[in-house]
Amino acid sequence: MRMFTLALAQMAGINTEDTREAVVGRMLAMFEKAAAGGADLVVFPELTLTTFFPRTYREDVSTADEYYETAMPNPAVQPLFDFAKEHEVGFSFGYAELTEDGHRFNTQILVDKTGEIVGKYRKIHLPGHLEHIPDAPYQHLEKSYFEVGDLGFGVFDFHGVEVGMLICNDRRWPEAYRTLALQDVDVIVIGFNTPDQSPGGDEQPHLAMFHHLLSCQAGAYQSSAWVGTVAKCGYEDGHHMIGGTAIIAPTGEIVSRVFDEKDSVILSDIDLTLGDFYKNGTFRYEIHRRPETYGLLTERTGRGEPLPVEF
Amino acid sequence: MRMFTLALAQMAGINTEDTREAVVGRMLAMFEKAAAGGADLVVFPELTLTTFFPRTYREDVSTADEYYETAMPNPAVQPLFDFAKEHEVGFSFGYAELTEDGHRFNTQILVDKTGEIVGKYRKIHLPGHLEHIPDAPYQHLEKSYFEVGDLGFGVFDFHGVEVGMLICNDRRWPEAYRTLALQDVDVIVIGFNTPDQSPGGDEQPHLAMFHHLLSCQAGAYQSSAWVGTVAKCGYEDGHHMIGGTAIIAPTGEIVSRVFDEKDSVILSDIDLTLGDFYKNGTFRYEIHRRPETYGLLTERTGRGEPLPVEF
Repeated sequence: MRMFTLALAQMAGINTEDTREAVVGRMLAMFEKAAAGGADLVVFPELTLTTFFPRTYREDVSTADEYYETAMPNPAVQPLFDFAKEHEVGFSFGYAELTEDGHRFNTQILVDKTGEIVGKYRKIHLPGHLEHIPDAPYQHLEKSYFEVGDLGFGVFDFHGVEVGMLICNDRRWPEAYRTLALQDVDVIVIGFNTPDQSPGGDEQPHLAMFHHLLSCQAGAYQSSAWVGTVAKCGYEDGHHMIGGTAIIAPTGEIVSRVFDEKDSVILSDIDLTLGDFYKNGTFRYEIHRRPETYGLLTERTGRGEPLPVEF
Repeated sequence: MRMFTLALAQMAGINTEDTREAVVGRMLAMFEKAAAGGADLVVFPELTLTTFFPRTYREDVSTADEYYETAMPNPAVQPLFDFAKEHEVGFSFGYAELTEDGHRFNTQILVDKTGEIVGKYRKIHLPGHLEHIPDAPYQHLEKSYFEVGDLGFGVFDFHGVEVGMLICNDRRWPEAYRTLALQDVDVIVIGFNTPDQSPGGDEQPHLAMFHHLLSCQAGAYQSSAWVGTVAKCGYEDGHHMIGGTAIIAPTGEIVSRVFDEKDSVILSDIDLTLGDFYKNGTFRYEIHRRPETYGLLTERTGRGEPLPVEF
């Protein structure tokens, strides 16, 4: 057994008028609970510090600069770093990043128990559309507000535990999990903001939760890794999100789950060796995978004609 | 709407003493039911014609030649081909193939409504072990009895519908579904034989069914394709299998499911355009996939060290 205590801090909506200081205060309250429970790592959702601003159209993205962090840490979030160091608990959270040279990313960081940033991920699978759709109930303009992440799918050492990060829509893409699993990830943490209605309103609402859990559970099982997936939930600027924060074992089974729609911490003592049964059996990649047959995965981006098969 | 009637013919165990003729008789009985129900395509399980012989160890694999088909069609299965042509219903089934030049494959064919073989797949993800494990309750020696399939993951035209085939363990590998989806597959058919106990008996039995459905449902959703997954079930030579035959929509939802453990046909009228909502949205691969970040999928076979990330 290799025990690790994973905490997920689900957050109710962050409205446009909420200050960074107010948000960080709510985060600290959950951080304290998790620390008191013995957490090694506490994970907060995607774009924790602000509303999910890509749901609003702007002709000029630079008018949204107030939503981006230009330095990390910065004074508003410094109390989180101080808390981590003082109490020796790591944390991870998502935020909008604006780099010195003007690039915008949907970013998540991993901070260790000394308060040092030891991992960073910039979201690769940006969902949604590029154009303004005026008659939609909301926009989904991440491709306008962010560039595709340029750091790949990293796996980072967190006090001897290998941690990978994915953000929201990444969790629907098996390529993302597999790339982490091929680096022998122990724990995959995922922050997300998922509305319970598709932008056109033309999908049955129950499917949003089903697809979230299906993707994360299959990702855990097929990676033989633990998954911690943490939501913003409830209403945010009038838009309702699904919630669905969960800790998922390498069996694909949910071991802890939040059902409410408020700031909530869950915490599980997880055995990092639980995936070994699969890593050494069904998913012993080195003897079972056949990369020579996977060429299309990187040769094609979109769907195309069937390849000829001679038999 | 593009309607298609998919039938799955689950089969109870085929014991060692059962003749090909007896098996084909059972298949024909289900074929007739499916044809009467208006099926376009009827799918039978993996290794339909014989017991799942890789569960028994042999020092010399060639002593198992009786289980392999050296020609397809052949007199024993000819009635299936005749029935297809006469009733204008296609079919697909799995069998052990021994080629003229001595290669052994775990194979599935797709036969169209004129009785012609229009597609062939040879299983790529062979599970199990190579060595004999004398104290295991059964063996899992597919890697000994078969070579890795050499035809890739093909997608075949079946009267205007694009059909792909996977066999058993393939269904746990997202690479397999994705390779079919990148060829714009409409329907993925999967035959399988899955015991309800892991070879060492050291996994909770409920997980076999859970992992089967989880993998197939995630595969359907992430491919935006229909999946028909069909089992051998009940006892075969004293070994119990999970069953779990199901038709799964591109939403990932099960629309028809067999719960018994005998020869059983299910049949659904499916709308092949149901996946378009996802193909044009969440899974619009051509704008969302990022193959430049997926290099490890083909560069590595097994797990390795994390790649360095500079941030």
